[in-house]
Parts: sequence; structure tokens; C-alpha cells
Amino acid sequence: MSEFEGLFLVEPAGKYTKHLLRIKKVIAWEKTPYQEVAFVELEGFGRALIIDNFIQSTEGDEYIYHELLVHPAMTIHPNPEKVLIIGGGEGATLREVLKHSTVKRAVMVDIDREVVEFSKKYLEVMHRGSFNDPRAEVLIMDGLKYVEETSERGFDVVILDLTDPYAGPAAKPLYSVEFYRKVKNIMREGSVLVTQAGSSYFYPEEYLYVRDNLRRVFKYTGEYWTWIPSFAVNVNFIIASDAYNPWDVNPEEFDERLNKRGVKNLYVNGARFKGLLLAGVLYPRHLIPR
Amino acid sequence: MSEFEGLFLVEPAGKYTKHLLRIKKVIAWEKTPYQEVAFVELEGFGRALIIDNFIQSTEGDEYIYHELLVHPAMTIHPNPEKVLIIGGGEGATLREVLKHSTVKRAVMVDIDREVVEFSKKYLEVMHRGSFNDPRAEVLIMDGLKYVEETSERGFDVVILDLTDPYAGPAAKPLYSVEFYRKVKNIMREGSVLVTQAGSSYFYPEEYLYVRDNLRRVFKYTGEYWTWIPSFAVNVNFIIASDAYNPWDVNPEEFDERLNKRGVKNLYVNGARFKGLLLAGVLYPRHLIPR
Amino acid sequence: MSEFEGLFLVEPAGKYTKHLLRIKKVIAWEKTPYQEVAFVELEGFGRALIIDNFIQSTEGDEYIYHELLVHPAMTIHPNPEKVLIIGGGEGATLREVLKHSTVKRAVMVDIDREVVEFSKKYLEVMHRGSFNDPRAEVLIMDGLKYVEETSERGFDVVILDLTDPYAGPAAKPLYSVEFYRKVKNIMREGSVLVTQAGSSYFYPEEYLYVRDNLRRVFKYTGEYWTWIPSFAVNVNFIIASDAYNPWDVNPEEFDERLNKRGVKNLYVNGARFKGLLLAGVLYPRHLIPR
Amino acid sequence: MSEFEGLFLVEPAGKYTKHLLRIKKVIAWEKTPYQEVAFVELEGFGRALIIDNFIQSTEGDEYIYHELLVHPAMTIHPNPEKVLIIGGGEGATLREVLKHSTVKRAVMVDIDREVVEFSKKYLEVMHRGSFNDPRAEVLIMDGLKYVEETSERGFDVVILDLTDPYAGPAAKPLYSVEFYRKVKNIMREGSVLVTQAGSSYFYPEEYLYVRDNLRRVFKYTGEYWTWIPSFAVNVNFIIASDAYNPWDVNPEEFDERLNKRGVKNLYVNGARFKGLLLAGVLYPRHLIPR
Repeated sequence: MSEFEGLFLVEPAGKYTKHLLRIKKVIAWEKTPYQEVAFVELEGFGRALIIDNFIQSTEGDEYIYHELLVHPAMTIHPNPEKVLIIGGGEGATLREVLKHSTVKRAVMVDIDREVVEFSKKYLEVMHRGSFNDPRAEVLIMDGLKYVEETSERGFDVVILDLTDPYAGPAAKPLYSVEFYRKVKNIMREGSVLVTQAGSSYFYPEEYLYVRDNLRRVFKYTGEYWTWIPSFAVNVNFIIASDAYNPWDVNPEEFDERLNKRGVKNLYVNGARFKGLLLAGVLYPRHLIPR
Repeated sequence: MSEFEGLFLVEPAGKYTKHLLRIKKVIAWEKTPYQEVAFVELEGFGRALIIDNFIQSTEGDEYIYHELLVHPAMTIHPNPEKVLIIGGGEGATLREVLKHSTVKRAVMVDIDREVVEFSKKYLEVMHRGSFNDPRAEVLIMDGLKYVEETSERGFDVVILDLTDPYAGPAAKPLYSVEFYRKVKNIMREGSVLVTQAGSSYFYPEEYLYVRDNLRRVFKYTGEYWTWIPSFAVNVNFIIASDAYNPWDVNPEEFDERLNKRGVKNLYVNGARFKGLLLAGVLYPRHLIPR
Repeated sequence: MSEFEGLFLVEPAGKYTKHLLRIKKVIAWEKTPYQEVAFVELEGFGRALIIDNFIQSTEGDEYIYHELLVHPAMTIHPNPEKVLIIGGGEGATLREVLKHSTVKRAVMVDIDREVVEFSKKYLEVMHRGSFNDPRAEVLIMDGLKYVEETSERGFDVVILDLTDPYAGPAAKPLYSVEFYRKVKNIMREGSVLVTQAGSSYFYPEEYLYVRDNLRRVFKYTGEYWTWIPSFAVNVNFIIASDAYNPWDVNPEEFDERLNKRGVKNLYVNGARFKGLLLAGVLYPRHLIPR
Repeated sequence: MSEFEGLFLVEPAGKYTKHLLRIKKVIAWEKTPYQEVAFVELEGFGRALIIDNFIQSTEGDEYIYHELLVHPAMTIHPNPEKVLIIGGGEGATLREVLKHSTVKRAVMVDIDREVVEFSKKYLEVMHRGSFNDPRAEVLIMDGLKYVEETSERGFDVVILDLTDPYAGPAAKPLYSVEFYRKVKNIMREGSVLVTQAGSSYFYPEEYLYVRDNLRRVFKYTGEYWTWIPSFAVNVNFIIASDAYNPWDVNPEEFDERLNKRGVKNLYVNGARFKGLLLAGVLYPRHLIPR
């Protein structure tokens, strides 16, 4: 068969261009009450979760995203015991959180039951059984609502693994000052939050919206980004805390903490996290201050 | 007009996927004796040079590539006076080199007269007049042949701005041990070489071929990479030197040197370069040592 | 959502170009022992059957193909009682055959049980219950083998609704002189055969192979073609018979026969069939005799 | 080089799908005061004229369109001496008109000087020198204006080779009752008009608009269509006349007239034209009267 025949996913790669990925196999394709969810096998990237035609995670490179989302925030905290994940339906964020032996309880809140159920069924390669860990609790509900209504308090780390801030009007409230204030409400003193923050190169306004909102609510922020091969674009992350400055943990201490907690990573270690902090944020040319 | 009608460039974005970029305007399109050369305007990226259907540089983001290629190598050298550029037809590498006030002579060797002539005509936005700088000398000849035949010696910095190492059999000799030995021959003692090195994530074998060859010929190497938005993939760079270890220059000294030499950058500074060194190289999952 | 994002089918439209169709919904996608089978909903064309990434039939325009395949052959025969269909898994060819009240028995032989089962389930819009007609018998077996091994004789009309003659080496035997001789063996004296014959414009060699083979085995042939909107290319048909010359039935008689047999069509009538015969075959320029 | 890399033209193929054609070579690409005009070489179709990203004519298959546009109208007229072409910048319509030895004068009116000049230069393969025929007169002006302002009268045949009726609001006036009345004004008694009429399958409303307008102004109309391989869609034509019913000329007489006038065609003859008239118009399913 020809290289360019068959089923393809067409994704925007940033604002101006499109990315075509060959779908080798459709495993499941469902319209849930919230979104269109697909589990497919992508040429070169393996099993993948696609939501509303956007790649969320692929077997081949999800480790880059999930390790970078989870470990810096977990590791700058000296003893994360209680962790909240909002989003993260495929279970890979949960998997990374549970690597830390300090964790006693990890609450994951995802709005879409079907994403979670399908992931349990088709994405063992991602969750690796984390849903069955006795420390894990999975709630199916709107993250916004959870934060407003739960009586739980005292989260040490909060991980926001949400739809992109540029994904449309529905996404904005999840990156607002109001939301961050409510999240802070259920965090312990001396805790850490991290969020993915879209793509600073292609969506700088949305990125700065997130960053500035976090800065209004938290004392310290740390910004870093990477490129995710299957996304074709860069993904930014922001850590925020009133207690811990992400710049303060030196690489050796970072690695020692990972080591003590039994965390083995493919990508993230202390030097790399420090490097990414130093490397700074990539903006489009017209936004660079001269 | 519809978003998805008209003229498009289809480029491979790594090994498995394609990238579609809308061409807003064709400025020139020529078959030279060496390659097919196009000057176009790309949606969102501005004026661009395309060779054999691969984007080389775009007005919008070429600064990322050219600053990262040039300034680390130039700056870890304490006093680069004589610089050799092989490739770099659009004149942007030359532009960055000439920013350093220490430079007395910059020889640029490109095989394709028409790329250089067209760039002079259509890409002022890239070369910014660097071709007319009295310190610059532009030779139209095969870089391999130049290195073998020139009687010039004593280059402080050599910058290899060449076709990708995965671009086919013609590219391999430009990244071989033999080539690096010949280049070293015309370098001064205490000099620095830098090359772009393809994409370690999508073409790890080719990347490691380049790195290992450099390691056989030079004492120190420094590896770093970034993502180029219009390429959709990551680009790696390797610095090699017998005299200067890229890890040794601290960020403050780096910035001080840039400052003293009158170099003003959009992206590269000491912290960023150090960060990229620390961030390490990105490999596909199956190549990560456990 | 953008017009050009999401799931697309990329099909070759002739030899040189590609056709992109938006898939609105994936209904089922299965690898059978013989092929990859998909039931999807295509933008603008509705429910569709796709085999090995080629559109076979769409809700919107399958009537053009199926009426043109079936009714000319059925109607130039004065009294078709026993009909054999080879291929035609979605049941639409069977549906058109059964419109003729003269038909007492229609045997349909398709190699792929899953295509038939899935079509029963998902393509009611195509088969319209024809699988349940008491006159229909559906056999799951290789058409080549059926023709060689069956003890049935006396088919009045044979309809070959097969993979394209240019689809690869597996297709050739289904359009060979040997095959046509074997088919003739189980046809009654005074019977008619029809086959789809690929695309004379894009695959003229394969088309002429089919036509010349039929001419070697049958006395009369009649050639006609149309364009199928969802295929983007033309499709040719050839009628062959020892008894009936397709050119001999005049439009009025054609319509009268359809009328007497209770056949109501969307597209095919006597004038149109005569028109298509007269319009002749479309070849690429270099094959047109001067 | 890979089959799916490089420069592509993306065209809508009907309303719902896209057609990708590989551009082998860009010959010229210009923005004129009226439109964007490209002369390219297309894989499989040869040299091509593209206006506003829509293929107008390709070396490989333009004969189908131009012969079908010109010869039926010219031939049902017993003695066409004076012919008006509106549009047709590449000169191929003019070429076909001038084949008829009865023609004493052919006036071609095209709005875009650059299309005509470029065609003279790059599309000899299409115009074949027709611009230099002493019987030809080429005027650069708006066809609408020409029809309103010219003092010429007595055209025997008028050929409207215009932008598609579905191409946007600018196209509508060229297919209006008012326009047809004005054109009729400068036609001789006993004359014939023909227009291309878009795509009845994908744009039935626009097609019926054209047909109904012609029916209001002329006594007889004749409708026919074909598929143009490089367009991927069907193209309709309508002949209109107060004097000659297109259905009245029998195929033998048609061929005899062509023969007497020295016309040699690749595709059009009397039988084919009759066949296409008989084959009727193709509408989408929901518009077919039951």
C-alpha cells in the first residue's frame, strides 16, 4: 500500500500548519457526553488517546509529557503525601504520581467516565495498573465542581492535567484567578501546584494569561517547556507555590529525593529540570522584548 | 477562500508524519545544478527558503536556529577572529557571526551560487546586509573540496550549517571522521567547531553517528537541542573542541563576552545555553538506557 | 471545529492525485481474514463501506454505480430468472437485481463473511432488506472457487461486482479469459454477463485487458462508463453476451421491460443507457487513435 | 523523494472533499489585478493553468472540456461565420473555434491581460498559435462591459467560457437573465449560445439557476455533462438557441458538418454528443424526482 493512502488524523500543529498522522488501526471511537474519544494505533507512535481530534498521549512519547508534568512539582515538595490530579483520564499522570513512595493518597478527578473506562481497557500501556493501586481514588466529576464542593483539604501537590488554555471558551475558567484561588483553598500550607499551560510560541496570549493568573495567586512560579514529538509543538508547564521556589532545589537534591522515594524515570532528573528552567520560555519573535 | 485550499508545502515532520504549510506566495522557484530552490511566503512564518521541498529558514523563527548554531561556539571561544562557515547560503549564519566584534574575517563557503544570489535578492530580512560586510568573504564551491584544497589555516571557529545527516547518502561524508579530521587540519590550536546534527528523536542513529565521529576527533563535545516551530521537529547541535569544554563557561561569563563583543540576541544568552546543555538529548523511548 | 481537522480518508483518485474525505463518524473498523473493512459516515456522502482504504459505496451516490451495473444487463435479457452475483457484499447489487419481478433466484457469492454480516447490521440503507428476500441465497466463498466447483448451471445473468482490475495481482484472475470461460460454463445459452471494469482514463491497460478478454469469450460486448462523485474518478462497465447485443435494445423497449418488471430507478432508463453506449469510452490522450 | 512530499495544490473536489495534486514545477505565479494566476506542471497532467487555486486547464485533459464546450454549439449551427468567446484566456477555446473553416472572424474577450500574455508565452501546448490566426481578434476587457458597449452585432455563435456559477457572488451576473438578454442582443437571428454551467451534482442550485435563466431567454436548450479527470468532478454544459434545437441534428449530419469544415477532434463526434444529450443530467439523490 502507498505511503499516503488510508486513514489519517489531521491536527493543527500550532496556529498555521497541519500535521498528518497515519492511523494504523482504530481500536475504539466513541462520542461521550463531553467529547469525541478515540483509541487508535498511530504509525510510529503506537497506541494513542485522541480527544476531539487532538492527540492527548501516545505510547511512544507520553513519558516526556507525564514525567515533566509530575516530577518537578512532586520533587520540589519535600514530602508529598496527598496529591490531587484534575484531568489525566488515561492514568499516566496517576502512574507517575504513585511512583513517589511518600504518596499515601492520590485523588484523580476526571469529568469523562468513558475516557477512564476505555483507558482502563485499552491503555494498560499507559496506566500500568495505577487505577488499581490502593492509594488511588478516581472520581468521575467536573474538576471545577470538585474543587468548589469537596470537603477534602490539605493536598500537598495539585496537578492540573487539563485541556489546552487555547482550546476555546470552555477552557478559560480552568486557568482563571478564581479557579486558582479555589484550588489553593483545598491545598495545605506549604504545597505545590503545577499546570500544563499550552504552547507559548503559538498561543502566547493564552500562555501569559495562565502565568499571570498564577502569579497573582502564588508567591513563586517556575516556567519550563518541552517539545512533544507527536504533538509537533511545544508544551509549557508552570509550577506555582507559596512555600517552595522551583529554582531553589539543586539538581543533586532533586535526584536524591527521587532516589529515596524509589522513583525511576526515563527523562526527568534534577539536571534536566534545572536545565529547562534555565532555558526559559520560547515566544514568537514579535513578543520578545528588545 | 477556504482555509484548506490552495498551494501547500508537504514536509515530513520526523519519520512518521507530514506537516502541511500554506504557501501564501511563490516568490521564486528554480532548479539549480544542485537542488530545487524556492523562495516563498508561508502563512504565519513569513518569507522562507525551501530547498528540495524542505524548509531551511523562515523569517519568523530562523533566529532560534541561527542564534543557537552560532553563539555558543563563538562565545566559548575567548577571542574568535577568523571564522569559517560551510553552508548557510541565506546569510543568516554569517549575520550572527559578524555580530561578534572580535571577528576580523568570516569565510562562507556554499556550493550553490543561485541560493546565495537569490538570498541576496529576496532574503534581506535574513542576511541583513551581511554579504556586504567588508569582513565577509563568500566562496561558491563544494565545502568538502574547500576543506581539502584551501591553503588557508588558522580558523578559530568553524560552523557547519549543512544539510541534515539523515538527508541521504550525499550527506554522510559531511559528518564523517575523515571530514572532521580535514576540517581540524585548517583550524587553529585552541579552536571550536559546531555542527547542526539533525534530529535525535526521529533519527537517533544518524545523530549518534555524528556525535561519535566528533568524539573520535575532538577532546570535548557539548550537545544541545531545541524545537524549531516551522520544522515541527527538534534540531540538535554539537560543539566540539580540543581546547574548550562547552560546560566550562559559566552563564555570567558567557553574557559578559556577548556584551563586550556588542552581540545582542533575541534568544541565546548564557543561562539559556547552560540550560540546554543541562536539559540533555531527547531520544526515542527504546533507546533510553534503563 | 476547523474544516480541515480530524479524521480523513486519503484515497488515490486515479494514478496521480489524492482525494481527502472527512470521516464524520467511525461505525466499525475490522481486519477480516481477507481485508480491512470500515463502516463510516463521510461528510456529504453519508454512510459508507470502505475496504482496504478504498470507498466501495456511499449512501449518497451508490445508486449510480449499482443501477448502472445491474439494470442494463438485466434489461437486455428478455426474461432473467436466475441471476448470479459475485462480490457485492453490501447487498446493493442484490437489491437492484431483486427489483426485477422476473427473478426467481439470485445467488450472491462473497468471499468475506464479515463484510456481509457488518453490512446487514450497519448498511440497511444499502441492502434494504434484500438479504431476507426469499429469492436470495448468499454464499460465503471465493467467487473463483464457486464458479469452478458449483454444480449449478443455467444462470441468465451474471454480475461481477469485484475489486478493481488495477487493484493488484490478486485481481487479475477475476478478469482473465480462463475465468470468463468458466463463468460461461455455468451460464445458460442466451444469457448476459456484466462486469465493472475499472477506470479507462487512469488505468487504460487494465481496462483494455478486461475488454479484450471478454471479446475473446463472448460474441457481443457493450461498453459504458460514468463518474461516481465519491470516487472522484470514472468507472467503466462492460456487458458481454453471445445472444444479445447491448446496442439492439431500443430505449422504449428498455423502459417497457423495466416497467413491466416493476423496476423503478433513480438514474437508469433506456435513453440514458443508450446515451452512455453512444458516448463511448474515455481514454487518456496518448491512447486516442489519430 | 517520497510520493507525498513537496508542493501540492489542494482543490475542493465538489463540496465535501479535497483533491491533492502534486506540482512538479512552478513556471510562473503572479497576482494580476483580477486574480492569482499560476502556470505549473502537474504530476500526470502536464502543463496547467491555475486561477485562484482552481485548475482551469491541463495539457493532458483540456481537450475533453474544450471540444465539448465548442463543437456541439458550432456544429448545430449550419454555418458559423462570426463567433464570440467570452473568457477562455488560455486560447484553447479559440483554437477549437478556428478549426471550423466556416469561421471568418472570432472575437475573444478576456478580462485579464496577464492570463492572455502568460498563456501566449507558456501554453503554446494549448493555444497552438491560435492567437496569431488572422481571423482571431483578442480584446482585453470585462465581458459584461463588452456585451453592453460593443457596436458589433450578428454573432452566429457565442461561447461563454467563464468562471464557475458557484464561484461566488462575482460569478452570478454572468449567468443572469439580464446578461443573457444583453448577449442575445448582439447575436444574429438563427444563432447559438453555449455556456459551461458548473457541476450539477455538487452545485445543483447554481446549475438550475443557469438552466432556468437560459430557458427564460431562449426557445431551445440542450444539457450535457462530462467528467474532467484533473477536476475530479463533473462539468455541465448548456446550449441555448431560438433557432436550432440541439436534439435535432443527427449524428451523421453532425459528423458530416465537422468533416466538411475540416474539423478533426480527439473526443467529440456526432454519436458522442447525441449520447451525452441522452445520458441526461446527474443530480444528487435528494433532488431526483420520484
